[in-house]
Amino acid sequence: MTKVHTARIGILTISDRASQGIYEDLSGPAIRDTFDDYLLSPWVEEYRCIPDEQPVIEENLIAMADEAGCDIIVTTGGTGPALRDITPEATEAVCEKMMPGFGELMRQESLKYVPTAILSRQTAGIRGSCLILNLPGKPKAIRQCLDAVFPAIPYCLDLIEAAFLENNPEVISVFRPKQK
Amino acid sequence: MTKVHTARIGILTISDRASQGIYEDLSGPAIRDTFDDYLLSPWVEEYRCIPDEQPVIEENLIAMADEAGCDIIVTTGGTGPALRDITPEATEAVCEKMMPGFGELMRQESLKYVPTAILSRQTAGIRGSCLILNLPGKPKAIRQCLDAVFPAIPYCLDLIEAAFLENNPEVISVFRPKQK
Amino acid sequence: MTKVHTARIGILTISDRASQGIYEDLSGPAIRDTFDDYLLSPWVEEYRCIPDEQPVIEENLIAMADEAGCDIIVTTGGTGPALRDITPEATEAVCEKMMPGFGELMRQESLKYVPTAILSRQTAGIRGSCLILNLPGKPKAIRQCLDAVFPAIPYCLDLIEAAFLENNPEVISVFRPKQK
Repeated sequence: MTKVHTARIGILTISDRASQGIYEDLSGPAIRDTFDDYLLSPWVEEYRCIPDEQPVIEENLIAMADEAGCDIIVTTGGTGPALRDITPEATEAVCEKMMPGFGELMRQESLKYVPTAILSRQTAGIRGSCLILNLPGKPKAIRQCLDAVFPAIPYCLDLIEAAFLENNPEVISVFRPKQK
Repeated sequence: MTKVHTARIGILTISDRASQGIYEDLSGPAIRDTFDDYLLSPWVEEYRCIPDEQPVIEENLIAMADEAGCDIIVTTGGTGPALRDITPEATEAVCEKMMPGFGELMRQESLKYVPTAILSRQTAGIRGSCLILNLPGKPKAIRQCLDAVFPAIPYCLDLIEAAFLENNPEVISVFRPKQK
Repeated sequence: MTKVHTARIGILTISDRASQGIYEDLSGPAIRDTFDDYLLSPWVEEYRCIPDEQPVIEENLIAMADEAGCDIIVTTGGTGPALRDITPEATEAVCEKMMPGFGELMRQESLKYVPTAILSRQTAGIRGSCLILNLPGKPKAIRQCLDAVFPAIPYCLDLIEAAFLENNPEVISVFRPKQK
């Protein structure tokens, strides 16, 4: 049964430099703007900006899902091959089930733009009634990836008994199969 | 060396409601009909219908592979993101090696029809001389997915020393590379 | 920071029969020839040919990465579903992070040629400053797979602080995004 409540969307920027104020976080706002474009239904935001430390990422994901009650948490950053890129491992550590199709489709979509798309280790998973989704760090790639996977997200939230999302059909299409 | 024996094909419907008789299992018969269409070589069926309980799924997969001697077990149901969907985890728990290419191709194929294909967590793996393959729950999607991956299945069974499958080339093509 | 040193490329042929001299290793030389074609920058080779034994594979991968100082190790063989095919498991056991995009793209590429491409369990991962990449066993498939993924490899090595690779742009294109 879908919960009739205002959706709470977590935006988690994972970046050593942005979290230290060395540069401005442009990725978190890019996610916010995208959801503003997509959604007609009301939503509130839970925003955090943290360093690339696995225990810190895990703590924040858990708090945002379990305490703040996020229906979806979208992370940005930390999905590459470099030593400090540890977002997918932290995501997997806090999820009960993994959703490999999200990462596959995002990489396939990004491959249309850059061959280095295969270096992205983005994944997604479920913790309780919360979908956790990794996005790339760059604002332009964020929109490309969300455009690719968002059509499946409202139905995914229905299935995990999270908030009902109503899309703006002039901006993005979503798909909900007929209920069984 | 390929075994010269009658193939045994396991069909495992995983559904709380079908296993309680709340509705009729249409997915198991859809798999049976598909293999009837595909195969010229004789085969016998090992059919079971069980609830979405991980220990029950694992027990049945093990018994069907090790005791009943199935060459391939095809599951249907339980691959989505919902709380009770636990088929991929049970599959992974009983397999010695995982075959990620099956899930990737099935999701890619299903994406031609519905954007929610990325919510499917279907996988495949090997237990001894048995290939275990997860299919979606809906009969129409079952056929779409099997049409996509079946061309590789007879050679896979050759490689794991399971039964030799002879396809009906008027219905489906299969590929066996020249032996090394 | 990219290391200014001569690249060291590990070539690891994993085959019971080739390692026993029952047949000649054609796959290792196919990898060598491909890198000779691709690279303008100097490189040295670390070549080994070993049986399909998981502990032996792991020992060699560790020694080639940590002691020999390989920037990239390319394996060939042992990625299928057969009992002795254990290369992906050995690779995962020695890597700190996995790179699922490589296997996905190689399978997608090979699917253009043979439907049995989904039987390949190839993966890639990072150990320290070394990229470990599984390739198929057949020389023709090796070139097809490397052509698909190589465009992302030099930038991957930059990100893990391995050697700088300079490609021959008349043979293969590579992509390095502008530095952030």
